Amino acid sequence: MANQNREIPYKIYLEEQEMPRQWYNVRADMKNKPAPLLNPGTHQPMTAQELSAVFCDELVAQELDNEHRYIDIPQEIQDFYKMYRPSPLVRAYCLEKKLGTPAKIYYKFEGNNTSGSHKLNSAIAQAYYAKKQGLKGVTTETGAGQWGTALSMACAYMGLDCKVYMVKCSYEQKPFRREVMRTYGADVTPSPSETTQVGRKILAEHPGTTGSLGCAISEAVEVAVGTEGYRYVLGSVLNQVLLHQSIIGLETKAALDKYGVKPDIIIGCAGGGSNLGGLVAPFMGEKLRGEKDYRIIAVEPASCPSLTRGKFVYDFCDTGMVTPLAKMYTLGSNFIPSPNHAGGLRYHGMSAILSQLYHDGLMEATSVEQTSVFEAAEMFARVEGILPAPESSHAIRVAIDEAMKCKETGEEKTIVFGLTGTGYFDLVAYEKYNNGEMDDYIPTDEDLAVGFAGIPKFEGNEI
Amino acid sequence: MANQNREIPYKIYLEEQEMPRQWYNVRADMKNKPAPLLNPGTHQPMTAQELSAVFCDELVAQELDNEHRYIDIPQEIQDFYKMYRPSPLVRAYCLEKKLGTPAKIYYKFEGNNTSGSHKLNSAIAQAYYAKKQGLKGVTTETGAGQWGTALSMACAYMGLDCKVYMVKCSYEQKPFRREVMRTYGADVTPSPSETTQVGRKILAEHPGTTGSLGCAISEAVEVAVGTEGYRYVLGSVLNQVLLHQSIIGLETKAALDKYGVKPDIIIGCAGGGSNLGGLVAPFMGEKLRGEKDYRIIAVEPASCPSLTRGKFVYDFCDTGMVTPLAKMYTLGSNFIPSPNHAGGLRYHGMSAILSQLYHDGLMEATSVEQTSVFEAAEMFARVEGILPAPESSHAIRVAIDEAMKCKETGEEKTIVFGLTGTGYFDLVAYEKYNNGEMDDYIPTDEDLAVGFAGIPKFEGNEI
Repeated sequence: MANQNREIPYKIYLEEQEMPRQWYNVRADMKNKPAPLLNPGTHQPMTAQELSAVFCDELVAQELDNEHRYIDIPQEIQDFYKMYRPSPLVRAYCLEKKLGTPAKIYYKFEGNNTSGSHKLNSAIAQAYYAKKQGLKGVTTETGAGQWGTALSMACAYMGLDCKVYMVKCSYEQKPFRREVMRTYGADVTPSPSETTQVGRKILAEHPGTTGSLGCAISEAVEVAVGTEGYRYVLGSVLNQVLLHQSIIGLETKAALDKYGVKPDIIIGCAGGGSNLGGLVAPFMGEKLRGEKDYRIIAVEPASCPSLTRGKFVYDFCDTGMVTPLAKMYTLGSNFIPSPNHAGGLRYHGMSAILSQLYHDGLMEATSVEQTSVFEAAEMFARVEGILPAPESSHAIRVAIDEAMKCKETGEEKTIVFGLTGTGYFDLVAYEKYNNGEMDDYIPTDEDLAVGFAGIPKFEGNEI
Repeated sequence: MANQNREIPYKIYLEEQEMPRQWYNVRADMKNKPAPLLNPGTHQPMTAQELSAVFCDELVAQELDNEHRYIDIPQEIQDFYKMYRPSPLVRAYCLEKKLGTPAKIYYKFEGNNTSGSHKLNSAIAQAYYAKKQGLKGVTTETGAGQWGTALSMACAYMGLDCKVYMVKCSYEQKPFRREVMRTYGADVTPSPSETTQVGRKILAEHPGTTGSLGCAISEAVEVAVGTEGYRYVLGSVLNQVLLHQSIIGLETKAALDKYGVKPDIIIGCAGGGSNLGGLVAPFMGEKLRGEKDYRIIAVEPASCPSLTRGKFVYDFCDTGMVTPLAKMYTLGSNFIPSPNHAGGLRYHGMSAILSQLYHDGLMEATSVEQTSVFEAAEMFARVEGILPAPESSHAIRVAIDEAMKCKETGEEKTIVFGLTGTGYFDLVAYEKYNNGEMDDYIPTDEDLAVGFAGIPKFEGNEI
């Protein structure tokens, strides 16, 4: 076995000509399609026309497309991808050695670009279609800041204006994230702000508020809808985002196929689902078509357990309750997760695609606690040399746990996980961990009941 | 030409089996060898025995080796290199397009590792030899923090203790750098500190001091010499460091050779010389052997212009005047550069190897001002997607300037520059630039005279 292992390099990079030229749309292979978005007033499926007031036309088409298995990646986006892709598929030889496991561990590392995460894969696509439509700019919200940074980079490249509403506490606590966005020419506003009706209303009602993702979404949508030549863009949850992120899984599969490796277990962290949905897409496709089988594991924080403890119902995508309704595993749009340091995983809901797949038993989900995540992060950093983002480290935790099970049983399983990004802007969290000051938090059933109470009640939407 | 260009991918990665297995020692090809280090008391060349009180034995041998052209890279170091190397050689298609230049621009990007720079290339080598000698740990100083981070990572991998003396103002202003080092298990002490005699002396004399690199060096050396099983390590200036950093140039040359590309101009930023010396080494070798010719340009900040305005004499390597004397271009060991944001380039002297090569007319040097550097950095970030470190951006500035000269003349020159690292921990500087609050500073002749006055005077060391 050792010789066979040695043939696989530490890092597998695809050649430029091996890079995917099409995204893969997993919905085409799903028997049970994800439920459509509903108009919150009429409870009827949102039409393309309704959606096009908020989103670019081409992205609306992608959002609604449950049929086409492959969608061409425009040449301009392929060219941009070449600047930072293919991302490496890394064989974690050093981690395996440290654990003393017979398991073979691989990770797809998406952090080698300035936005520091996989978010750029969809940001460039959304910016491209906005530019193609002749728009002047786009608006969005950002919490932890990875999405806002990615979108700023994409807009700088495409020559689009970019207005980012950044949750006020992040804006103040993460000034460096803000400066990266400004360096890329974005207009960054702390939310809630005086620049929108909804912002002024919230500030009047809650003068000291430090903001929330839900409020920032509301402000960004208001500005997009009310400004000539603007649309709103979003970094996760939506079907279109998972489509773009399929580039992660397609590259991973191509790299593994090149060396004749078939994974047994595929692991990804899950907040809104953009990374996990992208990583697993082509593998899930084979599973859906009955060609191959894989264990697929979603990892979420114990503090925000939408898949493992949420309800599979229609709910609002934002806490302001202005967006369409999506059928998803949700903790309720007014669920307030504890201040977990994995800001990218603090979302109350989950992608409709992943929710449906989970509901149909096609993937598993598990939740992990913060301190155990940072323990895994630190071990990983020391042996593999990469300082991981807290979000990504949820997947590391479970990959290590699965590898240790292999050590017990002696099984030589092949484990692949998604390392979504780097932790350079999360060092306040690392400092807390280094100082032994990090807490865990698991919501009680009573905490969850508060969130569930906010789920809209209408016929067919029983909890 | 377009077709020929297209054949070259955006990023050239060497295959694992194409990676260099030996470092290249440019001294072997120099007719005029770099002058030896002198004992500051006797003014006699430092012996191996004298140096081995401070440095590991194997590194002392490398420091003094002017003969061997190639030195094997130990397998353990090759394995570590595989975790983050080869680094990509990037064809800057987007920058070329933005500039509208016929020049072909390439950059060797060393920032894709958690230390964020090329410093890891020598850190792992120095940690390896320390471990091999059976040492317990190493000490060092760090200013901007890239070197300290790299050494922390290397020591975590090798299982060595790592004590870092971090200039106090950096320790306080860059807490995130500190936390990365702590995450890798390093013991980080703000300097000056109460932990050393020299630190206590300085604190007594200057109670409010925020420290200096020179003081941190003195503390680190004191601890290394006075602690059983410890040695001192350094991230630049020394011959051994340039030897290890030759991996940058060797990979660059292998990647260019693969596509039949011969550069006309090679550009690197220069502080102590570790990056520039490594990048240009194999090209300089060809030049020294009369095989090929290249223009080689060192870029330094106008605020700390050791090559362009310094003296080529023996001087102390630290401001505390406790180290051996090195013959180099120097501004004087008590020269205080203005608070330029390129912390890695704020060193009063320059590698003895590069100093000799410059003195012999084998390379050029130029200096650039800070605001023009950040202007180039921002343009580069927006079109090439990478947020560069301020240090690296000095090379970007001159690469752009040379490419614009090609635009005027119509010459299709091939320009290669070193992109040494990322700017994630330099966002205070970017914020100043974004806010229009950044100043330039060029020392007057009177400022320089203060530094020159501190250069030791002895027979044969005339200024």
